[in-house]
Amino acid sequence: MSANTFGVLFRVTTWGESHGPAIGCVVDGTPPGLALSEADIQPWLERRRPGQSRFTTQRREADQVVILSGTLEGLTTGTPIALQIQNEDARSKDYSEIADRFRPGHADYTYFQKYGRRDYRGGGRSSARETASRVAAGAVARKVLGAGVVIRGALVQMGPHAIDRARWDWAEVERNPFWNPDAAMVPVWTEHLEAVRKAGSSTGAVIEVVAEGVPAGWGAPVYGKLDADLAAALMGINAVKGVEIGAGFAAAALSGEDNADEMRMQGGRVTFLSNQAGGILGGISTGQPVVARFAVKPTSSILSNRRTVTTAGEDVIISTKGRHDPCVGIRAVPVGEAMMACVLADHMLRHRGQCG
Amino acid sequence: MSANTFGVLFRVTTWGESHGPAIGCVVDGTPPGLALSEADIQPWLERRRPGQSRFTTQRREADQVVILSGTLEGLTTGTPIALQIQNEDARSKDYSEIADRFRPGHADYTYFQKYGRRDYRGGGRSSARETASRVAAGAVARKVLGAGVVIRGALVQMGPHAIDRARWDWAEVERNPFWNPDAAMVPVWTEHLEAVRKAGSSTGAVIEVVAEGVPAGWGAPVYGKLDADLAAALMGINAVKGVEIGAGFAAAALSGEDNADEMRMQGGRVTFLSNQAGGILGGISTGQPVVARFAVKPTSSILSNRRTVTTAGEDVIISTKGRHDPCVGIRAVPVGEAMMACVLADHMLRHRGQCG
Amino acid sequence: MSANTFGVLFRVTTWGESHGPAIGCVVDGTPPGLALSEADIQPWLERRRPGQSRFTTQRREADQVVILSGTLEGLTTGTPIALQIQNEDARSKDYSEIADRFRPGHADYTYFQKYGRRDYRGGGRSSARETASRVAAGAVARKVLGAGVVIRGALVQMGPHAIDRARWDWAEVERNPFWNPDAAMVPVWTEHLEAVRKAGSSTGAVIEVVAEGVPAGWGAPVYGKLDADLAAALMGINAVKGVEIGAGFAAAALSGEDNADEMRMQGGRVTFLSNQAGGILGGISTGQPVVARFAVKPTSSILSNRRTVTTAGEDVIISTKGRHDPCVGIRAVPVGEAMMACVLADHMLRHRGQCG
Amino acid sequence: MSANTFGVLFRVTTWGESHGPAIGCVVDGTPPGLALSEADIQPWLERRRPGQSRFTTQRREADQVVILSGTLEGLTTGTPIALQIQNEDARSKDYSEIADRFRPGHADYTYFQKYGRRDYRGGGRSSARETASRVAAGAVARKVLGAGVVIRGALVQMGPHAIDRARWDWAEVERNPFWNPDAAMVPVWTEHLEAVRKAGSSTGAVIEVVAEGVPAGWGAPVYGKLDADLAAALMGINAVKGVEIGAGFAAAALSGEDNADEMRMQGGRVTFLSNQAGGILGGISTGQPVVARFAVKPTSSILSNRRTVTTAGEDVIISTKGRHDPCVGIRAVPVGEAMMACVLADHMLRHRGQCG
Repeated sequence: MSANTFGVLFRVTTWGESHGPAIGCVVDGTPPGLALSEADIQPWLERRRPGQSRFTTQRREADQVVILSGTLEGLTTGTPIALQIQNEDARSKDYSEIADRFRPGHADYTYFQKYGRRDYRGGGRSSARETASRVAAGAVARKVLGAGVVIRGALVQMGPHAIDRARWDWAEVERNPFWNPDAAMVPVWTEHLEAVRKAGSSTGAVIEVVAEGVPAGWGAPVYGKLDADLAAALMGINAVKGVEIGAGFAAAALSGEDNADEMRMQGGRVTFLSNQAGGILGGISTGQPVVARFAVKPTSSILSNRRTVTTAGEDVIISTKGRHDPCVGIRAVPVGEAMMACVLADHMLRHRGQCG
Repeated sequence: MSANTFGVLFRVTTWGESHGPAIGCVVDGTPPGLALSEADIQPWLERRRPGQSRFTTQRREADQVVILSGTLEGLTTGTPIALQIQNEDARSKDYSEIADRFRPGHADYTYFQKYGRRDYRGGGRSSARETASRVAAGAVARKVLGAGVVIRGALVQMGPHAIDRARWDWAEVERNPFWNPDAAMVPVWTEHLEAVRKAGSSTGAVIEVVAEGVPAGWGAPVYGKLDADLAAALMGINAVKGVEIGAGFAAAALSGEDNADEMRMQGGRVTFLSNQAGGILGGISTGQPVVARFAVKPTSSILSNRRTVTTAGEDVIISTKGRHDPCVGIRAVPVGEAMMACVLADHMLRHRGQCG
Repeated sequence: MSANTFGVLFRVTTWGESHGPAIGCVVDGTPPGLALSEADIQPWLERRRPGQSRFTTQRREADQVVILSGTLEGLTTGTPIALQIQNEDARSKDYSEIADRFRPGHADYTYFQKYGRRDYRGGGRSSARETASRVAAGAVARKVLGAGVVIRGALVQMGPHAIDRARWDWAEVERNPFWNPDAAMVPVWTEHLEAVRKAGSSTGAVIEVVAEGVPAGWGAPVYGKLDADLAAALMGINAVKGVEIGAGFAAAALSGEDNADEMRMQGGRVTFLSNQAGGILGGISTGQPVVARFAVKPTSSILSNRRTVTTAGEDVIISTKGRHDPCVGIRAVPVGEAMMACVLADHMLRHRGQCG
Repeated sequence: MSANTFGVLFRVTTWGESHGPAIGCVVDGTPPGLALSEADIQPWLERRRPGQSRFTTQRREADQVVILSGTLEGLTTGTPIALQIQNEDARSKDYSEIADRFRPGHADYTYFQKYGRRDYRGGGRSSARETASRVAAGAVARKVLGAGVVIRGALVQMGPHAIDRARWDWAEVERNPFWNPDAAMVPVWTEHLEAVRKAGSSTGAVIEVVAEGVPAGWGAPVYGKLDADLAAALMGINAVKGVEIGAGFAAAALSGEDNADEMRMQGGRVTFLSNQAGGILGGISTGQPVVARFAVKPTSSILSNRRTVTTAGEDVIISTKGRHDPCVGIRAVPVGEAMMACVLADHMLRHRGQCG
């Protein structure tokens, strides 16, 4: 991955800051002849859109995507697809007071150190607003993958409260404001998040993204492995601090017998008897569901007084007011799905390129 | 990352199979004028070399590296550095019986599905032997980084047994065969691994790699973030199933107050009061130690009878004899260090390129 | 170069079709802290803008560029710079009649063969309108290079009429509508082009671009040579069929004595006694002016009846009306300058990255 | 293109210096299942090998290629193919006297300026010896392209003496030491080159490479155009100063009527009535033969006394003795073919990746 572009054949370049006039992306390498209009992209943006419940930032954004190039008469032409979203509710005044002080946990200090300046308006380029472009690109990637590949995400842990996987219900994911697949955990999370919100604090989360229908063979070892590219794609989402595939960190505590997925012929097809591998072996998809999880740290913008320093090197206290998600992990779910879609679309094309 | 090359300015291309005549790599983009000879690389290879204790594979390899290009009179010239290591103890006969059956947990099935064929001799390209090239490249990367950046790794968990971080002692790491920083845990691991080895089983591990001396400012947001590139580099190591930075997955359970590292001026310098971030915010280094961990699954080659299928679609039982590490995580420690070094060297040059 | 993005550190991604709502580009990798506003870019676009004389297409475009990201308070931030230009005078009706027939010399047939469809409105993506984005990006590249590097272009041949290099006058270039450095040739070209225009025909051209002030040392052998990257950048401009550096094709007829530029110390500096090399040896700049030339074929859109076929495989006759430049080479001058600027900016950053 | 690697899916990385122990390359991205052994590569190396006539350097190199990875049982596995050639006749003493002075026309000065040092032994990395790796990679590329694509090169001009294209005979190319397709020109060139050689001078050349059997549709506009990638690939060959496609620079003097190739249906297929385009329109192959030409400057190593400077900044006289080709253009013919093959193989895979 290289600066603001990622992918080899299916390539996404994003641009834009939290409080600039607009954000957007250029999606390059899309196969021609795919049906694509704004109506194919907008529903995915709706899932990420802020202001939809009291548990997400109250910033109001219509997040209406416009396709500026790359389609003709409702079909992709194979040329780059430019997508654009206006920024509407950018209250820069909210941020003026933190222009000269570094918010702990944010990228303020590092952008300043790297570039000698930073766009202090809402975090500028480092704002999670950039992820709207990822979701838009992910919608195009889903078109490339076709209906046979189904990518879904869920929140599997909020703060210290993990779901019971035995109660996993994908239908439930769509019924609560947390993308929670475990109905029994919804009231627990509601209470937890309400308390966090009222305290002006924040909480972290773990998201799981599952791609079903991925055929065996995608991935480009040994430095373009499917899991390596997924790891980069997911770790690169704002506030993510960990990524795992299949059994993930738990694999470290397993025995070889418990970890390696056995195989049997079933109905004339190779079938794995378990999926500790998360659908990837040697960096190549196995044909099983691709399973990835990533951890999102608690929102760094909190009301409590925190110690920090200014650009002039003075010790100060900061309390971040503005409008913020108490758990950014919630809105990271559609972003994780989108990154999974982009990585898979790229590897689908790369595999077809090398292996026909 | 793209197939068998990684990096943008400091670029590494590796080649070679477990049982071919040799393996090697081409390291491109190295600054000129750095002192470099085989003696600078060999010690790092020694740390990864098999057959050094009863806890690693008994395959005997001298792993003598040769520099074939890119230096003159002991200094780098700026042109590509070709490094090569002969394969000596490649007993292909050990593997002939598994030529037509897929070892569970290995990449046999996926390589076969992707390419329609596979090099069954010791895993071919998917063998951990390839990581010797990474270690060699990492030695060059350390030269690029200079003495100011110190990269060290340690095993922090073997199977279910995690170290007590309060007892962390870097000196201890060099004193036991496990790269274990917690002396009190050495006998526990010894007993555990001895039992695993005798049972013909295997066990997983978690490795931590720490880079000290990295200045603030390295990393290229938002798709070349330092943590994203580290995630790809570490996830791409054989058998790795998870990667985390700083607090990692534990961050999900933290409050915003506990997670965001506060800052204070100390001695005229910005100082963080903690390092939950693992030295990276917004994909850019903070100047604190860069801390990454990765989970290695238990070795897939085990003696127990396991169910699998053949290339002809028959159900069979397999038991992998050969010579194997009961805990591949041990030898992954120098590999993780090397990948950290390569990623940092690349970002050092990239940062210098963009920001001077 | 890869699809719609080029460059390694200074990276340009363009998008947009001739008759879509807008065109634009994303310029990534720009160093932070450079003064940049629309006023820095617009003058360069004016030089390429159509409709300025009777010798260029009468399509009327304001070509007003807007910066959508990447700057704050008039300075670059180091994050991607999105530039956008509206399409205003896109008379799609002019093109409806050629929707199903392939214009000879245009990319109609090849786009159709590659993608199975094509945007027939004004050539879609293959239109020279895309080059406005290149010019805009080139303006940013000039900022990166700074005032010490001066890039200028001129038309040195129109149709069969070449200039007399002994009469070269850069000031004259700005005084005639052809970017012609040889005042004596202006009336000849005027008469030639007037005849061509009245006949509904077209004519080709050769453009020379010179970059002064490039220090010795830029270029990344052996597959990122400065001349190789220039060759790709210039050959990739619409309608270009040839590229040469320094003596170019004429070098083939020279003796070794006449070709190799001798050196002498002058005023304490290495000085070349000639510049047959065009400022590049071994793919690296010498410190002399970098000199490149490229040949532009005559505009393929002509009034004469031409034989062609339809998408349905029928023989037909075509005459391309619409609004066209009788000599597209004229407007290629600022485009060539822009590509030179982008390549140099990329190599400046790459050189700094590797060599400090 | 990026430093010492080129290509997107079919990727070639080369390494090695003129007087190091060996040179070689890593060819990545090759489709699996292709028959490949040293015997498929060696014949192409023979065509480039020095010392075969009195018109090429008398350096004696067996140029025996060895495949070190990427094949199993005579078939490619899809993993990187490492190719290696030993340097045998490297008389470093020939070069010791020019260690501190810059040979005019060579890359000595620019390497020194860029890297602060240079491998003075035979030109080091900038030596044409590196092109043996390109030829080896090109042999693999031909395998990827298959028998349906035929790539041939010829010398069409030596010094001031151009062939008569009306007498073009591909069979003649194999019958004389110049790859000359015009039998009537052979004695002229023989006399010319004999005189040049005796005078200790050198002469330039123009090479034409033609690829037949390329289907319509290859090429990735607008920054991965087939002609742009060919331009970079050919311009990047040592001593090349110009590249043109089809009519090339002559297109500048044509009228639109004479330049644009008309089309007609013939036998149910679209047929072009001429090939001024050289088989490429809009950066995409037309299905006609792809025709490229490139100009090679006269060898810079000549016996005559030439003025130059030393690394210490002193004016000196230099006469390059050593063993050299009086016309390096001759041995550039197989190199040009190889670069054409590599570019086409990459675009074949890229096209298949995007468009299926």
